[in-house]
Amino acid sequence: MSSHSHDQWTRKHKVCLVGSGNWACAIARIIGVNTTKYPTVFEPVINMWVYEELINGRKLTEIINEDHENVKYLPGYQLPANIVAVPDLKEAASGADVLIFCLPHQFLTRLLPQIKEVISPGAFAVSLIKGIDFNDKGIVLVSDIIREGVGIDCSVLMGANVANEVAAGDFCESTLGTKHLHQGEVLRQLFHAPTFHVNIALDPHGVELCGALKNVVAIGAGFCDGLGYGGNTKAAIIRLGLIEMKKFCYRFFDGIKEDTFFESCGVADLITTCFGGRNRKCAELFVKDKGVTWETLEQTVLNGQKLQGTLTAKEVYHIIKDTNALHEFPLFTTIYRVAYEGADPKSIAQL
Amino acid sequence: MSSHSHDQWTRKHKVCLVGSGNWACAIARIIGVNTTKYPTVFEPVINMWVYEELINGRKLTEIINEDHENVKYLPGYQLPANIVAVPDLKEAASGADVLIFCLPHQFLTRLLPQIKEVISPGAFAVSLIKGIDFNDKGIVLVSDIIREGVGIDCSVLMGANVANEVAAGDFCESTLGTKHLHQGEVLRQLFHAPTFHVNIALDPHGVELCGALKNVVAIGAGFCDGLGYGGNTKAAIIRLGLIEMKKFCYRFFDGIKEDTFFESCGVADLITTCFGGRNRKCAELFVKDKGVTWETLEQTVLNGQKLQGTLTAKEVYHIIKDTNALHEFPLFTTIYRVAYEGADPKSIAQL
Repeated sequence: MSSHSHDQWTRKHKVCLVGSGNWACAIARIIGVNTTKYPTVFEPVINMWVYEELINGRKLTEIINEDHENVKYLPGYQLPANIVAVPDLKEAASGADVLIFCLPHQFLTRLLPQIKEVISPGAFAVSLIKGIDFNDKGIVLVSDIIREGVGIDCSVLMGANVANEVAAGDFCESTLGTKHLHQGEVLRQLFHAPTFHVNIALDPHGVELCGALKNVVAIGAGFCDGLGYGGNTKAAIIRLGLIEMKKFCYRFFDGIKEDTFFESCGVADLITTCFGGRNRKCAELFVKDKGVTWETLEQTVLNGQKLQGTLTAKEVYHIIKDTNALHEFPLFTTIYRVAYEGADPKSIAQL
Repeated sequence: MSSHSHDQWTRKHKVCLVGSGNWACAIARIIGVNTTKYPTVFEPVINMWVYEELINGRKLTEIINEDHENVKYLPGYQLPANIVAVPDLKEAASGADVLIFCLPHQFLTRLLPQIKEVISPGAFAVSLIKGIDFNDKGIVLVSDIIREGVGIDCSVLMGANVANEVAAGDFCESTLGTKHLHQGEVLRQLFHAPTFHVNIALDPHGVELCGALKNVVAIGAGFCDGLGYGGNTKAAIIRLGLIEMKKFCYRFFDGIKEDTFFESCGVADLITTCFGGRNRKCAELFVKDKGVTWETLEQTVLNGQKLQGTLTAKEVYHIIKDTNALHEFPLFTTIYRVAYEGADPKSIAQL
């Protein structure tokens, strides 16, 4: 072990932000302040890896480094001057002690080997990527892809955190799911702010799964809205969804903690997603506009982006079906059947 | 002990519904069906005590018994024919084994002694009254007023149950809080229906307190709405409210169970109340219409009815202040200070 990693309690952490989209830039506004605020804990400069593109003939990295604004993904909000855009991934991640992943997870497989080569010994990661991946064996946690791809530990940061509201400095909360209290404390110093309260939950799997499973419940909430159901029914669907989220986590993962579901990643993010959000919206239109396909909704409402909720609903359904547990998950089962098997949307309220 | 009460596992329960307002009539539509459906458990006929009044020159009891509709409090919905309106309280409650209380709690003190005289030995009660009362020592649970006033046990039924939606048969859930599983099972048979799912929670205090404390949180949610805050912030306020509801219950009452807060009376009713409901509405107007008093809002928005949330916020504040616990309840404290001490509403998001 190098002297560097022995020094983990006192060394200054060099931070690299992998990603520069809407959410990455919103969080950059917070962490850029915090690395300056805690100079004994962090190197002030944060490298932000930016996928280079031309905006009106000018490089995006150049715009960020000169004008301190990501005009494409978070226009109107200044980035701190110590956020330095770097187009080369290896250069950006070189010597990093803390890696923040905040980009579509499809990019990870290609990027992780490059990152692995250049990071500091003793480095650790945190994933801000919401959603989960799937392979032929079922659910794959994004944090596990990072853990395996880089060979380091990975915490997660999830909560009711709509990016533009965070950028605007509206008060909100977030949950840091980690296995290691020390890493948790360092990351809490990096992310916590007066308007962005970070709670630590020693339950990284629970925190990450909440971020994915809430999207399934939001599909159910959207069906409710599409049917014009009132507050009683929608509240019942959200509550049943929370119960099934819990049950699913306990059944298929280890180390889940009850308290996680009371954190921002649990009940708060669930509420936000079931009242706002794209999954709820598309599910509402799916019911109102009979016969419309999810593919059409993705094209027309989401400009071709994939809907996480339906994708997750399908995978969750296969897992609970394969383990003969359908009867324990009546809501998840019904959401799947309405979404993919032509079941009457009204069955959402006939559980 | 009479042979009657020895027979509690097999006797037919005679049910009396004390109250005939909007919520009482909505629930009458369910229990009237269930007493007929389970003839070995219940006497089919249910006496409903009705405070007699004249509607266009005709007695309300007469209208209900002849036309099977409470034209004043739940117009447009038929009541089952086995719901019999009785204007005399003693006659209505005579020989009752199950008493359902569903009326403003201010009436209780006057009514309970009369009920006590005439009920069956071994009778038990269930309160559908939301809200709590206060005396010079602090919080008084409505169920305790019934327990002491009639000298019988009292369960509670609470949840995300807007009366008109229940009457319309919209799907919802409700929580039966009870100390006694047997009484719980009888009451579940009385209330449970395909569109009205009843879960038993062996935590009557927790269930009842949720029904009162959620109104305090709704005041905070209304302040958020009045300030135009987004989904992140409102979700954070609701979550912090749920945490403080839990903390308050654990600190001041015995036998509270964590699971209660995941039931309909907890998270679901909280959501409904923070997105719909009069407390949220008045709090929103309190912020928007600077300088308006709660009394004015009660007059103009609620036709003179008292707002539960502000009243409860005040009593809760005094209890946590008197026990030096203000720092543990930053949200409840802030809601009180905005509502009564002229604090800036924005302090709701500066906890």
